[in-house]
Amino acid sequence: MRRESITRPAVARPDEIRGRNLTSLLTLVHHEGPLSRAELTGRLGLGRSTIGALVGELDAQGLVRVSVPSGGSQTGRPSHVVGPHPDGPCVLAVDLTVDNTSIATVGIGGSIRRRWTSPGAADPLTPGLVAARIGAILESLGRQHPAVRPVGIGLSVPGTVDRHTGRIGVAPNLGWHDVDLRALLPPDVPVSVGNDADLAVLAEHIRGNGRHCDDLVFLIGRSGVGAGIIAGGLSLLGTAGRAGEIGHNVIDPAGPPCHCGQRGCLETFVGQDALLAAAGLPASGSGGDVAIVFNRARNGERRSLAAVQQAAASLGEAVAVLANLLDPQRVLVGGIFDRLLADQRSRIEHSLQARSLDTSVELQGPGLGADSALIGAAEIAFEHLLNDPLAVRGIAHR
Amino acid sequence: MRRESITRPAVARPDEIRGRNLTSLLTLVHHEGPLSRAELTGRLGLGRSTIGALVGELDAQGLVRVSVPSGGSQTGRPSHVVGPHPDGPCVLAVDLTVDNTSIATVGIGGSIRRRWTSPGAADPLTPGLVAARIGAILESLGRQHPAVRPVGIGLSVPGTVDRHTGRIGVAPNLGWHDVDLRALLPPDVPVSVGNDADLAVLAEHIRGNGRHCDDLVFLIGRSGVGAGIIAGGLSLLGTAGRAGEIGHNVIDPAGPPCHCGQRGCLETFVGQDALLAAAGLPASGSGGDVAIVFNRARNGERRSLAAVQQAAASLGEAVAVLANLLDPQRVLVGGIFDRLLADQRSRIEHSLQARSLDTSVELQGPGLGADSALIGAAEIAFEHLLNDPLAVRGIAHR
Repeated sequence: MRRESITRPAVARPDEIRGRNLTSLLTLVHHEGPLSRAELTGRLGLGRSTIGALVGELDAQGLVRVSVPSGGSQTGRPSHVVGPHPDGPCVLAVDLTVDNTSIATVGIGGSIRRRWTSPGAADPLTPGLVAARIGAILESLGRQHPAVRPVGIGLSVPGTVDRHTGRIGVAPNLGWHDVDLRALLPPDVPVSVGNDADLAVLAEHIRGNGRHCDDLVFLIGRSGVGAGIIAGGLSLLGTAGRAGEIGHNVIDPAGPPCHCGQRGCLETFVGQDALLAAAGLPASGSGGDVAIVFNRARNGERRSLAAVQQAAASLGEAVAVLANLLDPQRVLVGGIFDRLLADQRSRIEHSLQARSLDTSVELQGPGLGADSALIGAAEIAFEHLLNDPLAVRGIAHR
Repeated sequence: MRRESITRPAVARPDEIRGRNLTSLLTLVHHEGPLSRAELTGRLGLGRSTIGALVGELDAQGLVRVSVPSGGSQTGRPSHVVGPHPDGPCVLAVDLTVDNTSIATVGIGGSIRRRWTSPGAADPLTPGLVAARIGAILESLGRQHPAVRPVGIGLSVPGTVDRHTGRIGVAPNLGWHDVDLRALLPPDVPVSVGNDADLAVLAEHIRGNGRHCDDLVFLIGRSGVGAGIIAGGLSLLGTAGRAGEIGHNVIDPAGPPCHCGQRGCLETFVGQDALLAAAGLPASGSGGDVAIVFNRARNGERRSLAAVQQAAASLGEAVAVLANLLDPQRVLVGGIFDRLLADQRSRIEHSLQARSLDTSVELQGPGLGADSALIGAAEIAFEHLLNDPLAVRGIAHR
């Protein structure tokens, strides 16, 4: 259910209205893809001539492209279709994980144009290493297409991010504490930083399995475990941006020791390395691969099957905590939980029902596969442009 | 941090604007109390003449009262002050608990006019009994002041409430399942129903210790334990209104059995009866009183002290769960937790810090004492009037 504040003033100056309408139109096309002028008129509640003027401005900026669908000799006036410009500005999206780093250029409309993946390094990932990789990609992009400079950089990080400063507070699995990645990156491109689960839920809400679902949680399982929350149609980031840190909630005080210093954290039951250890395999940094555990479990190998079943029961308990506290309509589970849901849905749902008071939550995998956090990083990088579409004039792009 | 949806249309028709402005002005005066016309102009961003016209309409309805502060021979024009009308409409607020039921008439501005308290009955509280009490109070009010009829009834319930239908799903400590209280009440007064913790956080946000705090949680400890959540300045109720049910989250699978069927629920560690049992006293329904436990603990009685210390440690863990997941700026603890915080703050904070990843949450008691949920019930009862101030024309009031 959408929520709105009641104390928002009801009036605005004409130039504010025009700016907000440009933002609304470009955001709609960015989120929904090509729409006819008639659809834009209906969706935005604005007149035909206003829509025409707004589209004209965005077209002149190279942000949208107006086309007439082919079809030849139809009677009546053909309805022009307004879509994201395929050669419009792009952003650089970065999804940092312990095992590998995905980097991509993403255009308006959310399409991935080009992608780079760095496999798991033997050396630990340092902020300097990340900045160097991004710098090298920007340089190579600049050499190939001098006119194309990303209008923003979006970074997804497996840790807490201060929403006001963009500083990374704690990224336990990277061993990072109080890191300002933005200070290490080129100053001429705006940099936005977000938590991986927060960005994953944002991307799924905009263009994945969370569309039209205003009460949504994304529970991500990688090295760590985190939750991204949409409540009432809006991102819930918390007062400083640290919401969703469910991985270090203690679910059994008699459980295994956790690297955070506590015992029995959720991560020690359902994290990637917990699953590998339970199956008798080395940690992911030392060559372990959860796909092997899932495959062995499918083939009936006893230890792997027990590990997967235990993880499924604990995942159900974690979803129950989220369901009891947030009452979401839907919980999406990603990372290693996507496969866990595919293989062990009934066990997860059984444990969820046993642990929740009064819930009918829907459980699903992500619609964007393994790219939810990457696309979410692109979304926050596009925010500057969407908030002020005409301000990109100074930034060169084709 | 306040959150707003970006896809809200930027324009509105003049009559919509006027209606929204009436709502904004009356809501502001209801929340903040008397304000000068100059303050109203500044806070609402509207011109003097518009404010004058809006105030005139609300004054004619008997909703606000315009007064000139005394002071005599000041130079310049005195600024008129606009406040809630002391003889304006009232609502009937009801706070249902297992031990006693508080009922009050509450005026615009949140002032309690008259109060009735029913002490703990030997018989279990049934929906019919509650409806009969409310009906008797309405009838007696009507006999004394035939012109005064509450413009709404607000009910606070210790259980899950469907936000769309107002039905009570589960109220475990009352033993209620799927109850429609509204069907039992007089049809001529609109009835609003809410969960006690949700209403407590709303009231504290509007006029208690949560003012100007947009990321706020109220953790209430009575027979049961529940959380009410404000995130980004807006109530978080969940998709069906069942959010905040933290009481039956399992915090130790080896813990005591809970009446819900699980073991080691939070309620079995910090609920009222858990505290009484740990101190060797009978349950509250059988004459036990937590004040005795707190007093004995202060006097050094060993068993009561151990019970209070154990409850304090568990309360810190519960706040840590909320802090990790929601990152609120402040957590208010009410019901029996208010006294627990006063007596055991350092133990609660120690346990909170040990169990949370990266938090600086502020812990406080409620600003409205034991009345947070009662005042919150009045707030939801006033919503009809605030949303459409001129529609009360048909309802008689002085």
